[in-house]
Amino acid sequence: MKSWLPIPPRSHFSLLNIPFGVISSKDKHSHRLAIAIGNHVLDLDAFSAGGGFNKAANVSSEHAKVFSQPTLNAFAELGRPVHRAVRSYLQEVFLNDTPHPDVLKDNDALKNAALRPISEVSMHLPFAIGDYTDFFAGRNHAHNVGVLFRGPANALQPNYSHLPVAYHGRASSVVVSGTPLRRPWGQALPAPGATEPIFRPCARLDIELEMGMFISKPNNLGTPISVEDADEHIFGYVLMNDWSARDIQQWEYVPLGPFNAKNFGTTISAWVVLADALEPFRTRGLENEVQLQKYLQDNRPDNVLDIRLEVSLSRGEETTITRTSAKNLLWSWPQMVAHHSISGCNLRPGDLLGSGTISGAEAGTQGSLLEQSQGGKTPIKLDGGQERKFIQDGDKVVIRGWAGDQDGQLVGFGECVGQILPPISL
Amino acid sequence: MKSWLPIPPRSHFSLLNIPFGVISSKDKHSHRLAIAIGNHVLDLDAFSAGGGFNKAANVSSEHAKVFSQPTLNAFAELGRPVHRAVRSYLQEVFLNDTPHPDVLKDNDALKNAALRPISEVSMHLPFAIGDYTDFFAGRNHAHNVGVLFRGPANALQPNYSHLPVAYHGRASSVVVSGTPLRRPWGQALPAPGATEPIFRPCARLDIELEMGMFISKPNNLGTPISVEDADEHIFGYVLMNDWSARDIQQWEYVPLGPFNAKNFGTTISAWVVLADALEPFRTRGLENEVQLQKYLQDNRPDNVLDIRLEVSLSRGEETTITRTSAKNLLWSWPQMVAHHSISGCNLRPGDLLGSGTISGAEAGTQGSLLEQSQGGKTPIKLDGGQERKFIQDGDKVVIRGWAGDQDGQLVGFGECVGQILPPISL
Repeated sequence: MKSWLPIPPRSHFSLLNIPFGVISSKDKHSHRLAIAIGNHVLDLDAFSAGGGFNKAANVSSEHAKVFSQPTLNAFAELGRPVHRAVRSYLQEVFLNDTPHPDVLKDNDALKNAALRPISEVSMHLPFAIGDYTDFFAGRNHAHNVGVLFRGPANALQPNYSHLPVAYHGRASSVVVSGTPLRRPWGQALPAPGATEPIFRPCARLDIELEMGMFISKPNNLGTPISVEDADEHIFGYVLMNDWSARDIQQWEYVPLGPFNAKNFGTTISAWVVLADALEPFRTRGLENEVQLQKYLQDNRPDNVLDIRLEVSLSRGEETTITRTSAKNLLWSWPQMVAHHSISGCNLRPGDLLGSGTISGAEAGTQGSLLEQSQGGKTPIKLDGGQERKFIQDGDKVVIRGWAGDQDGQLVGFGECVGQILPPISL
Repeated sequence: MKSWLPIPPRSHFSLLNIPFGVISSKDKHSHRLAIAIGNHVLDLDAFSAGGGFNKAANVSSEHAKVFSQPTLNAFAELGRPVHRAVRSYLQEVFLNDTPHPDVLKDNDALKNAALRPISEVSMHLPFAIGDYTDFFAGRNHAHNVGVLFRGPANALQPNYSHLPVAYHGRASSVVVSGTPLRRPWGQALPAPGATEPIFRPCARLDIELEMGMFISKPNNLGTPISVEDADEHIFGYVLMNDWSARDIQQWEYVPLGPFNAKNFGTTISAWVVLADALEPFRTRGLENEVQLQKYLQDNRPDNVLDIRLEVSLSRGEETTITRTSAKNLLWSWPQMVAHHSISGCNLRPGDLLGSGTISGAEAGTQGSLLEQSQGGKTPIKLDGGQERKFIQDGDKVVIRGWAGDQDGQLVGFGECVGQILPPISL
């Protein structure tokens, strides 16, 4: 697939991708939908207003109303057949041999109105997130952390292989890539064995490399979604950094789970890659040895995504500290959806599900510093001579993720960037 | 305070109350704001449109726009001084010796347009709930449950007295009083000591008697709310039944907390009682013997609410199974707000905070069946000869709550009603 628009060969936003996001610009402050393509964005509100969708057989004017919305929620709710139709049509529009040259290729007025350099727009949170649920599906991570806390014999809890363990996260503090976050204050035990907490800025601030998934089609309260139907409820994916205050978590989390250790912020990438764009990159996840309950049986073996993931940490100089793949999950996204809703819980367009931390099995593939530093014992080395056990004030963490390896054919997410600022004065 | 409108002496909605809710009616389907007064509601949208607020010195036409909204979010966001002004003015309007008789008392046209029997309107979820957080502040409950699970020596976890333990709940499945819920399916261990789960409809379905609190004024991400400032962020309160699937919870909750055991539904009462209306009923909560961190020190000793709470269970005949008070909390609402935000977590208008289960110390005062039946061992007796360890299909649970005891001066919540329907067929 070659485009008339110049697209750099290693761009995450090839013509095979067409990710969706929410932009604003200096000349137009209202938030509105856009796609990314190479080093450009197509402002879908302006494109639609300029008649860009008139030639799209399966995109009605009713559908096109959503492009002026300030979030992707209404677009997501239209359902996967509409997402597919919009993406296919936009791919046609940008094709070198487009069947619709008059729509954009040869239409300078619409190009001027709707096509902009990506560097000229600001990105915003893609969804109004109703609920955010964080799973724990990265078995290597669960195992690694379990070894640190309970030793190798009891690393995984008894329920771990039987159901996708999850907890409800905080939706209000999910922020878009580039938003700085303050190091949180909180209670923690000053030393192992201590019984009286102290109050201080988090001393063990960590990252968690995750994938996030957004829900499109809702289900009614009381009506579970089956594994087989789950794909129709999936809108698309983002990169996610589920920042974690390990010392706060360790003190607060018994018996009801993580709370303040997580709710100071969760960073997601700005561009949402549609489920359809990632279909070619399905692969097999981690093997589960137990006999699953019927509602969790996923008969399609290639139900996780082979997305290459990298985490870098920088303080001036940038060091890649993690290289792994999003396929390192014990549970598929349809299994997570099925389990989440088996109680009757209703999922809504714009709900965010996190995979849990994704780690490989070897050194240099782990998605958290807790794992890489073996519980804060062994510092990791950064380029330029610095060391880290946990995140320091001023550190910038960048997650990158993409599928595919051929020039001109990458389906990627761009960057998910977060920087930790010093704690506020209290 | 006497009104020209007849108000039954034991009405929860005396002139001292003025609770806010969201109504619709047969002749007007749109959701809009209302207050309850005696056996009537005042449709605030119609009242405002008919000039009802023209005499209100501190309620601008800008403020009045919120009354046509389908939820209380925009009204809450206006802040406590505006809630106070609206409530005071409406009390004046309904006073027997109202200074504004022409507004409603002597204005039959506006009475016809805006004042309706409460039986003629449908109630809806009062807020679009951004995030729902459930605390665990009922120390008697935490103690009772701890004894069942770990014995009396370790009943309370080490962190319990140092911080208000909480977890993130599910916002999508919070429903308004009267909404029936299906018994959830889920995984559970078939017997103590078993290691392989089975899949079945919940066999230990329980209630949790709680108070809910809605946030009004937001804080910015990164900026905690102090205990001293917290009152300005509190909109008002509801009754809450945090339904719990005990068998599902026991299997799923390690290590990340309750998930499917809770997310099939949470019921709240329809009328939200303003914080101001409950000011006269402040009292002292449970004593905390530990030295608190400064950010949690609440220098006002009377910082919980003395609201009488009753739970009844009915299957035809109604039996009151619980009588207690909302004062049975170790942590005040301002302490919960301060702890929730000390990490920098942002609270938004319409966020819901739950108190955790409220239990007294004696038999007949406990807010869950788990406690009343001593972990499902000893059935409780219902009027009419039936027994219950946990909730059966068809059981209806009604929570009632009110403050005050003088005729004509109750400040109450009405009822919070939920019925459990049989599980769906899978």
